[in-house]
Amino acid sequence: VYISELSADAVDLGVYRHYMQKEIHEQPRAVSDTIEGVIDGGVDVDGLFGAGAMEAFKDLSGALILASGTSYYAGLVARYWIESLAQLPCNVELGHEYRYRDSIPDHRQLVVTISQSGETLDTMEALKRAKELGHGRTLSICNVRESAIPRASKFVFYTRAGAEIGVASTKAFTTQLVSLFTLALAIAKSRGRLSAQAEHDALEQLRFVPGSIQHALNLEPQVQAWAERFALRDHALFLGRGMHYPVALEGALKLKEISYIHAEAYPAGELKHGPLALVDENMPVVVIAPNDQLLEKVKSNMQEVRARGGELYVFADLDSHFTESEGVHVIRTPRYSGILSPIVHTIPVQLLAYHTALKRGTDVDKPRNLAKSVTVE
Amino acid sequence: VYISELSADAVDLGVYRHYMQKEIHEQPRAVSDTIEGVIDGGVDVDGLFGAGAMEAFKDLSGALILASGTSYYAGLVARYWIESLAQLPCNVELGHEYRYRDSIPDHRQLVVTISQSGETLDTMEALKRAKELGHGRTLSICNVRESAIPRASKFVFYTRAGAEIGVASTKAFTTQLVSLFTLALAIAKSRGRLSAQAEHDALEQLRFVPGSIQHALNLEPQVQAWAERFALRDHALFLGRGMHYPVALEGALKLKEISYIHAEAYPAGELKHGPLALVDENMPVVVIAPNDQLLEKVKSNMQEVRARGGELYVFADLDSHFTESEGVHVIRTPRYSGILSPIVHTIPVQLLAYHTALKRGTDVDKPRNLAKSVTVE
Repeated sequence: VYISELSADAVDLGVYRHYMQKEIHEQPRAVSDTIEGVIDGGVDVDGLFGAGAMEAFKDLSGALILASGTSYYAGLVARYWIESLAQLPCNVELGHEYRYRDSIPDHRQLVVTISQSGETLDTMEALKRAKELGHGRTLSICNVRESAIPRASKFVFYTRAGAEIGVASTKAFTTQLVSLFTLALAIAKSRGRLSAQAEHDALEQLRFVPGSIQHALNLEPQVQAWAERFALRDHALFLGRGMHYPVALEGALKLKEISYIHAEAYPAGELKHGPLALVDENMPVVVIAPNDQLLEKVKSNMQEVRARGGELYVFADLDSHFTESEGVHVIRTPRYSGILSPIVHTIPVQLLAYHTALKRGTDVDKPRNLAKSVTVE
Repeated sequence: VYISELSADAVDLGVYRHYMQKEIHEQPRAVSDTIEGVIDGGVDVDGLFGAGAMEAFKDLSGALILASGTSYYAGLVARYWIESLAQLPCNVELGHEYRYRDSIPDHRQLVVTISQSGETLDTMEALKRAKELGHGRTLSICNVRESAIPRASKFVFYTRAGAEIGVASTKAFTTQLVSLFTLALAIAKSRGRLSAQAEHDALEQLRFVPGSIQHALNLEPQVQAWAERFALRDHALFLGRGMHYPVALEGALKLKEISYIHAEAYPAGELKHGPLALVDENMPVVVIAPNDQLLEKVKSNMQEVRARGGELYVFADLDSHFTESEGVHVIRTPRYSGILSPIVHTIPVQLLAYHTALKRGTDVDKPRNLAKSVTVE
């Protein structure tokens, strides 16, 4: 009964034109639902991840995250959190790469798989391979209860995004992010690296996320104005640094998937090592950068191409001192969210892709050539 | 005296139209010179990398490679070699990312920096950061003697590419690759993982590389024919898997840098997780794939987009059974080079970028917006 109610709700578009738009706007609720347990009950490791989790996390030597597409980008953000909060070395690999290569198994690693559907073939095969190599500590982050990947894993954390119908993932991604942040806290706690004060502070930060997402959603009119100009382009570069680089990757992927604009992401520092040659008036550059220092560096890289008409589109924080100028456009996200900033910065890049696709008249919810769950090789 | 003779030789274009073309064709010689010591003397670890290298490599817990741009891609190939031959876990990071993030230093790691000029600012700063974090085992792969990075490193291996004048790196990349292969052998030997037979076999394989590069250079007319068609496009995707994915990255970067075509590389398995939406008649897909199995998978992914006119350009091995068909073009590289195959497959993608740029009439040796050595942030 619960399942069918949820489905009816998911299928009803309400005031929205597309499922993707609806799902973007559902994110404050989806994220709230996903973190409810940890907000109410604190970082209860076994309660959140399954019996024996705390014991299994205690003497980890590292984490190995396996995923594909958007879920892989969630893993790339998690790497920063796990290394920074839990001080545990973390590697992130594409499932289809991992399963076909020789790797050096370390059985004290936690193998984390991420898949919205829980049925992604490449990720399932990667998990099988990890188990064949002797990995026993496996954990799945998944949105669909009792699907194949969580069933094959020792521990599981379910995102509560609800059914996601748009092919381009939105609420699945942000709920994966808060789940992975919770995992980073759980590992930190199990390893004795999380003081009561630090746990309290982290949960406070987490509590603010749904509100910050709502504030970011309110940027929609400004992003829509940018989309008018983006819709006329066939290319874009997305730049970010550190934990915001995966947000640049996700922004570029969303634009590719639904607007068919060839958008590519780079870690900001790579621009001058090659891709800068591409920049002219046809190649807008989007920067996801809450950090003024990075912005100044990218701006100085860009100065030499201003003469060629290269334009910068910057998502900065409210307290950023970076200002608009000729060819430099700025949208400020409402508040700085510290280590959770990648979650909040995801919202405007989703909106940019959505409104650009709308302008271009593509089939937003069912982009050409793509399937929702990739269950083939 | 030696220096000035070399410079005169480097500046003389001879029969070539551009330095880049000359430097592409110099690769059999450049690679031969670089591996001369190991071919003649075997894997003499201290002799090749400096006194104390064997002792320092003996109890390594891992390798951490730091670089940018093309050198970073060389590092990505090296990761496969180091993990596979030396059974040592290896991570590869962009210097400008590493220097700005919190990482967990492990002093038993070997920190390897790669830079043609030895003056790349981001790589130098990353090395400084590693040393501040207490890393003592540092090794530099560099083409310019006594430049800043090798001077700041404990061990060094010089590539003998000779002066590289074209901004887009070619012979520096392939000589870095053979140097990194030598490093993988040296680590394997120091750790007692390289039998006399395995060493002999590896050196035999290495000995064949200059000849295989020469054979690949002979493909120039076929590649030139592809370039005629590429020059009409504004986009391309490059796909590879495993140790050929970095070759796809390098092929895409070369095309970007000198032809200003927006080429992007993906690990082949990611295609169906998003980028496939981009593929139509304007987006040729280049596959670097000595492996028939991968080819069949990519081909089945592509079948659904054949109706939209998507075209495949495949670099396969001579013994590949993959055949041409409507919209599927194949160039066969002369022989299968096993684990050294990425080196040989680099040649045709360099030639493709060069001839495409020629057709488009760009300034091949001095692409817009780029500098040869990136000595600024």
